[in-house]
Amino acid sequence: MQQAQYQLIIVGGGPAGLTAGLYAARGRLEVLLVERGTTGGQVLVTDWVDNYPGFIEGLSGFDLVDKIAAHADRFGLTKKYAAIASLDLTGEVKSVTLENGEVLTASTIILCTGARPRKLDIPGEYEFTGRGVSYCATCDGPFYRNQEIAVVGGGNSAIQDALHLTKFASKVTVIHRRDQLRATKILQEKAFSNQKIDFLWNTQVLEVRGDKSGVDSLLLGRQHGGESVLKVTGLFVLIGIAPNNELLLAHPMQTDEGGFVVTDEEMTTSIPGVFAAGDIRSKRSRQIINAAGEGAVAELSAERYLGSQVTDTSHNRSE
Amino acid sequence: MQQAQYQLIIVGGGPAGLTAGLYAARGRLEVLLVERGTTGGQVLVTDWVDNYPGFIEGLSGFDLVDKIAAHADRFGLTKKYAAIASLDLTGEVKSVTLENGEVLTASTIILCTGARPRKLDIPGEYEFTGRGVSYCATCDGPFYRNQEIAVVGGGNSAIQDALHLTKFASKVTVIHRRDQLRATKILQEKAFSNQKIDFLWNTQVLEVRGDKSGVDSLLLGRQHGGESVLKVTGLFVLIGIAPNNELLLAHPMQTDEGGFVVTDEEMTTSIPGVFAAGDIRSKRSRQIINAAGEGAVAELSAERYLGSQVTDTSHNRSE
Repeated sequence: MQQAQYQLIIVGGGPAGLTAGLYAARGRLEVLLVERGTTGGQVLVTDWVDNYPGFIEGLSGFDLVDKIAAHADRFGLTKKYAAIASLDLTGEVKSVTLENGEVLTASTIILCTGARPRKLDIPGEYEFTGRGVSYCATCDGPFYRNQEIAVVGGGNSAIQDALHLTKFASKVTVIHRRDQLRATKILQEKAFSNQKIDFLWNTQVLEVRGDKSGVDSLLLGRQHGGESVLKVTGLFVLIGIAPNNELLLAHPMQTDEGGFVVTDEEMTTSIPGVFAAGDIRSKRSRQIINAAGEGAVAELSAERYLGSQVTDTSHNRSE
Repeated sequence: MQQAQYQLIIVGGGPAGLTAGLYAARGRLEVLLVERGTTGGQVLVTDWVDNYPGFIEGLSGFDLVDKIAAHADRFGLTKKYAAIASLDLTGEVKSVTLENGEVLTASTIILCTGARPRKLDIPGEYEFTGRGVSYCATCDGPFYRNQEIAVVGGGNSAIQDALHLTKFASKVTVIHRRDQLRATKILQEKAFSNQKIDFLWNTQVLEVRGDKSGVDSLLLGRQHGGESVLKVTGLFVLIGIAPNNELLLAHPMQTDEGGFVVTDEEMTTSIPGVFAAGDIRSKRSRQIINAAGEGAVAELSAERYLGSQVTDTSHNRSE
C-alpha cells in the first residue's frame, strides 16, 4: 500500500493553520504547512488587532501573524509556499497536488483555507481597507468613537452590527440597495427606533474617497439616478462572506448552503482523517482568537485519529 | 417585571471568562465578572505556557493571565471578587446570590467555572505541581526531552499521552493500580510494543520526592506489600478531570455523564440566555487557546441573544 510522506498536511497559513502547525511541530508530528501566498490570511489586511487576548495594547495584524509564525518556527514547523492544484482526500492516504506537478501525501489533512468578505468592488475600497474600510464591526467598531460612519448591507448581521456600532459612533448611516431590509422584524424595529441610525434606501456606494489620513467621504448613487456625497470616516461593508473552498468543490464533503465546511466541535469533517479550522468552517463567530483555538483542537483531533489507526504511518516506518 | 442590573454576568475568571469579559467590555455591554478567588483559574498553577500562539518564547502561567486580565481591564471590565452561594438561571432574569447575601441579576450568564484535574492526594504532589508534577501531557511533555518520567493512569487519555510522551522522554514508566489497562486494544498494543514504555502493575505512587530543583523520585507501593523508589524527573497524573459544577447541580441543565456542561458550538447551553465556555464544557481538547476562543464565541452569542430579545434590558431602560 502507498506510504504517506507526512502524518499531517495543513492547507493554509492564517491563524488557524499556523496554530495547528505550532501544535503539530511541538508535538513532533511529521507535518507540513502549505500556503499559496504569505502566511497570515485575512489578518494581514487588518490594520490593528485590539482583541487578541494577552496583547494588552493591541498590535498590527502583520505583527500578530509574524509572532504566531515565529512561534511555530521555534518548534521547527516546515512550511512550503506553493499553489495547490487539487486535493485527493478520500483514501486512507490523502494527496495534495501542487500547481508545479509535485504530489505530497499525508495520513491526515487540516483545511485552514479561510474565507473572504464579499466586497463592493468599487474604487477606493481596496486602497482604504484597514484605514476606514472594514469588514468586521466587532473587530473595528471601537476605533470609531464619536465619528460618523456608514454600513452597507441589509441582512441580520449588517443590522445587528449597525446597532452594535451605535455604541461607538455618533451616527451610523445604513446604505441599502433595496427599499427594505432582509433582517428580522425585531432587529428592524430596534434599528428604526435608534436615534443614531439613518437609512438611505435604493442607494449604492460608488466610490470610497479620502486622503493619506483615511476615508473622508463616500460617493453614492441612487437607483433611479442622481449622485451625492456622504461625509463619513468609516465604511463597514457587511454584505456577507465567501469561503475559500475552490479546492473542495470536487469532494463529497458536507458543507452548509454557503459552501462552508461542516465539522463537529472536534473539527472533524465528514471525511475520515480530514479536519477543518478557522473561517472555512460553518460557524457564526469569526474572530482571530477562535480561529487559533480551533487550529489547536483540529491538531489534537488529528493526533487522536493517527493514534487510533492500526498501522503507524510515520514516514520512517513501512506498512 | 423585574429589571436586570446587568446585561451579562460572567461566572469565573480563567482565560475563558476573562476573554468573554474583554469582548463584553470592549463591546460596551453592562457586564460584571464574578470570581471567587484570584483571576487565572488553572493557568495560575501552570509554571510555563509554551503554546499560547503569539508569545514566541513562552511565558509563565501567571504572566499570561496577568496580561489577559490587564487587557480586559484596559476596556473597563468590572470584576467582583466574591464566592457565589447559588445561581438561579431559569427565568428571563437570572440571579447570582453571593455568600454575603448580595443578589446580582443579569439577562445572560456565561459559565466559566472551569475544571480541575483529579489528584492523587499524596505528599509532595501539591508542592511539586509545575516543577515536575503535571496534569497535561500536551502542555508539558516537550519540557522532558531525554528525561525519565512516569505516568499514572490506565485510560485512553493516559495511554495516548504516554505514547505522546515517548517523543520527548527517554523512558516512560506507566504506573497503574490494577493489573490491566482500561484503554482500547489498539492503544494498549501500541504501548506494549513501544520500547520506551515500561509498566508497573498493581502499583500506587505514595509520595513525590525531590528538592529545590524539582522532582527526583517517586515512592511506590505494591498492592500486596513492599515499597520501592523509582527515579524520575517528571510525573504525569492522568487519572481524569472533574468539572467545577457545584453551583449547577440544582439546575435542569444538560450535562454529560461526567457532569460537564453540554453546549452547541455557539456555546449555548440547554437553558436560554445561559452560555458556557472553557473547561466546564463537555469537550475533548482543553487548551488555554481554545478556552479563550470559546470565551469570545460565548460573548458574541450572548450579544446575539440580547439583540434578539424584544425588550432592551440594559439598566438605563425600563421594561
